[in-house]
Amino acid sequence: MPTEDLAIVAGRSIIGFSDANQGTESTRAVDPSTGQELDPPIFSATSEEVEKAARLSEQAFLEYNQKSGKERARFLYEIADQIESLGDALTQRAMQETGLPEARIKGETARTTGQLRLFASVAEEGSWVQARIDTAIPDRQPLPKPDVRSMLRPLGPVVVFAASNFPLAFSTAGGDTASALAAGCPVIVKAHSSHPGTAEFIGQAVRAAAEKTGMPDGVFSLLFGGGRTVGSALVTHPAIKAVGFTGSTAGGTALMKLASERPEPIPVYAEMGSVNPVVLLPKALEENTDAIASGLHVSATMGVGQFCTNPGIVFVEKGETGDQFIQDFSDKMRDTADQVMLNASIRSAYAAGVEKLDANARVETLVTNSSDTSDSTCLGSTAVFAADAETFLEDDSLSEEIFGPGTTIIRWSEKSELLQLLEKLEGQLTGTTHATDGDLAAFPEVIAVLERKVGRIVYNGFPTGVEVCHSMVHGGPYPATSDGRSTSVGTHAINRFTRLIAYQASPQSRLPDELKDDNPLGIHRLVNGALE
Amino acid sequence: MPTEDLAIVAGRSIIGFSDANQGTESTRAVDPSTGQELDPPIFSATSEEVEKAARLSEQAFLEYNQKSGKERARFLYEIADQIESLGDALTQRAMQETGLPEARIKGETARTTGQLRLFASVAEEGSWVQARIDTAIPDRQPLPKPDVRSMLRPLGPVVVFAASNFPLAFSTAGGDTASALAAGCPVIVKAHSSHPGTAEFIGQAVRAAAEKTGMPDGVFSLLFGGGRTVGSALVTHPAIKAVGFTGSTAGGTALMKLASERPEPIPVYAEMGSVNPVVLLPKALEENTDAIASGLHVSATMGVGQFCTNPGIVFVEKGETGDQFIQDFSDKMRDTADQVMLNASIRSAYAAGVEKLDANARVETLVTNSSDTSDSTCLGSTAVFAADAETFLEDDSLSEEIFGPGTTIIRWSEKSELLQLLEKLEGQLTGTTHATDGDLAAFPEVIAVLERKVGRIVYNGFPTGVEVCHSMVHGGPYPATSDGRSTSVGTHAINRFTRLIAYQASPQSRLPDELKDDNPLGIHRLVNGALE
Repeated sequence: MPTEDLAIVAGRSIIGFSDANQGTESTRAVDPSTGQELDPPIFSATSEEVEKAARLSEQAFLEYNQKSGKERARFLYEIADQIESLGDALTQRAMQETGLPEARIKGETARTTGQLRLFASVAEEGSWVQARIDTAIPDRQPLPKPDVRSMLRPLGPVVVFAASNFPLAFSTAGGDTASALAAGCPVIVKAHSSHPGTAEFIGQAVRAAAEKTGMPDGVFSLLFGGGRTVGSALVTHPAIKAVGFTGSTAGGTALMKLASERPEPIPVYAEMGSVNPVVLLPKALEENTDAIASGLHVSATMGVGQFCTNPGIVFVEKGETGDQFIQDFSDKMRDTADQVMLNASIRSAYAAGVEKLDANARVETLVTNSSDTSDSTCLGSTAVFAADAETFLEDDSLSEEIFGPGTTIIRWSEKSELLQLLEKLEGQLTGTTHATDGDLAAFPEVIAVLERKVGRIVYNGFPTGVEVCHSMVHGGPYPATSDGRSTSVGTHAINRFTRLIAYQASPQSRLPDELKDDNPLGIHRLVNGALE
Repeated sequence: MPTEDLAIVAGRSIIGFSDANQGTESTRAVDPSTGQELDPPIFSATSEEVEKAARLSEQAFLEYNQKSGKERARFLYEIADQIESLGDALTQRAMQETGLPEARIKGETARTTGQLRLFASVAEEGSWVQARIDTAIPDRQPLPKPDVRSMLRPLGPVVVFAASNFPLAFSTAGGDTASALAAGCPVIVKAHSSHPGTAEFIGQAVRAAAEKTGMPDGVFSLLFGGGRTVGSALVTHPAIKAVGFTGSTAGGTALMKLASERPEPIPVYAEMGSVNPVVLLPKALEENTDAIASGLHVSATMGVGQFCTNPGIVFVEKGETGDQFIQDFSDKMRDTADQVMLNASIRSAYAAGVEKLDANARVETLVTNSSDTSDSTCLGSTAVFAADAETFLEDDSLSEEIFGPGTTIIRWSEKSELLQLLEKLEGQLTGTTHATDGDLAAFPEVIAVLERKVGRIVYNGFPTGVEVCHSMVHGGPYPATSDGRSTSVGTHAINRFTRLIAYQASPQSRLPDELKDDNPLGIHRLVNGALE
């Protein structure tokens, strides 16, 4: 399909290979840098259209779950190609809808296509299904041993709630969609109202790829509309077997509740909030005061602080070095120009969080470049707060995520106090420490605590920047995510949308290729306990 | 520890290395073959004792999660040895408490120790942690690639609810306990009131093994007592991070609700109910009428039908062959002597289920050897019912599990009707078909439907007898289990009690051995995408 055909926003949901056309209620995207509404109107899907998409995904599953890994890979590679062919039309629309700079949108597009191709390669290679074979021993005493073989198989249709803060990489064809499609699950995306045009461009690319590679009608749908009509209806629909979500704790926990109260409860993979603690240990801080201050400043302000892995709380030892560091970091934060945030609601939530800490008598305000919150451009300003350990331990509000470029520094005076502070933390996506070998030898408990609290431990770096690779874990204990056993970034993410199935005494011809004696796919398998 | 020291039932909960001694309320085990109460009284744990066990497990986790796989393996091997050293004292007590015959108790003991040794071997070998390494590319453009490594790590303390129907293999040191301990999680077992003496014998064996192999106090506790004081208190305790359960749907769903409503929701792995459909396809039935009738009879009456995988519903084509089969099977069921069921409540639930179907005007009663339900010996009698497809489709009560030796036969007349029947089924542990190659070619949809409904597909066999091996899946979509992504039998079960943790840019010396460059454990790992 030539680029020109794709590069038009119709404002209509995509239901399999058809466009939705029933909706009459509409909203518009807003350019956060100007406050101006964008064309065209975006029509909400109706209840009937939601029902249609769900039923179509259920039908599509019957065919899609029988596609080979290589066929699914072709589909995913083609989605990546189609997205690239969108070119500048996509970039411009995404910039308009999010206020993000061109380099970021282009980088995120590359990350999104890279991610699709990574999952395609995993599906194509095929070993990810954890194939296991235990062969029969008919004359075993006291009972014969049967032939048993098992592998991961797709769960069924998946609903993906797109994130606001990554309009591409965690949105319509982001990590959740890519991993679910790679696993063999049809996907229905609930578009984020903050970037509907971007969502539709990508949705059209996915649809074009599905048609071109012979995937069933309904393997992918994209629905516009509100939480109740579209979101809740999808999560409670019997055809749906799992949910992926990236967003607020309130949104994620609401979906968890809906999913657990269904007649058939289903898994929800919600990536919610995290303050991403950074622990600065004494020698490392002394040796690298400047570099740590600079690195933290870059990490804390990247994307106007609108990253799930934004370093929100920093633990610094009391004393001269710590004071110097706090001074340096605060200076850099104070000198940072306001930047456009993603949308008005993120900006007002951020402003409220900053205001609350600013008004807290036990919290010291080191930086607030309070931009005028009444203007129509969604500007976000940096903020730095400081408090002592006692305050942090007593006042839970200091542990709350402030989504934006705000950082809270907590001063500690001895190891036992630092450990108490860390023990107070809830589940986190990441935990970072700056530490020399000597620090790590003197503070081994810091890593031991973080291992119980976080999904990823970062040494001498910063938590922003989530590498898409086989070993990445972008997860963490509740409330960072709904399910700390999983990751939403990296190839492990495919496992979320699967379940184990065993085949006992199956004829060879009826086994999936992954489990046949002659291993036609040439994948790694555990055969009678030995990896081959 | 010599056998004589262990072979005494004290009737007291085990809290780490100590005995509980606060409880004043007590119950007694009952011999279901006589209705007689057994000595000694079994004292319920108090709320303080539950709290103590939970806090002790939390403390033990700090040390136990740092034990190497080889150390955990030594612990599990020693548990198996200690159980074997219990010898006849264990067998006799288990027989008294359950009414199960000696061969079954000895077989189940062997299965339990075999299971412990299998999980020990998995922990010892070490590759199960799914170690992944992606090495750094410092000069990658546009951004450096960091070194990221990840593996599965233990979740934290686990509560295991012992099952009534497997007093050893799914009880105190059964599959849930073995897999959680192998993963690195301390375990608190809530004993089943049906076999407390057996539970205590095994609990003493686990404690002796923990002491002998240098495990921390609190790595294992065994609590007696009621659901509210002990069960609910454990599931809602903040120290507890996962739950394993085998039992009724009512019990399992109650735990799911408790766990999902905690401030920090935790996973519940509940194996609940299943009717384990058996689909007899025409040619296979014609060729093997006798053998299928005999095999089904053995499977349906094994353990007085008290197996989760008991074949409860059989789909048979209308016609002469089907009638002959039903006749043969019914004759065998009618000629089966009553056997002692596990306890009075299982027996009365079974009797109620049989009565309900017997009273259903649309259901034909082919066999009811109704034993006198008022006597004090817990006898269970076989039952066979039959109904047509329409009745099964319209009356949900026919799909309900009857835990005991009762089988319902549903007659179907054409393929589309059979598929409708199968589509009506909820999630199941198993689905069985008897089918020739010709049958499978003519009815490919049968397997396709079962793949969406069950955890294990059995060809030309019977679902009872769950092989403990690497590829076994003893799980299945809700309501067969709370979490169809998991299995409670086989080595995959270890994964339930883990979560992924990534280490970014960690110094070599601080990495777990599983992730060090020189691979000191010699395990299989995915290094830069290639399995080594």
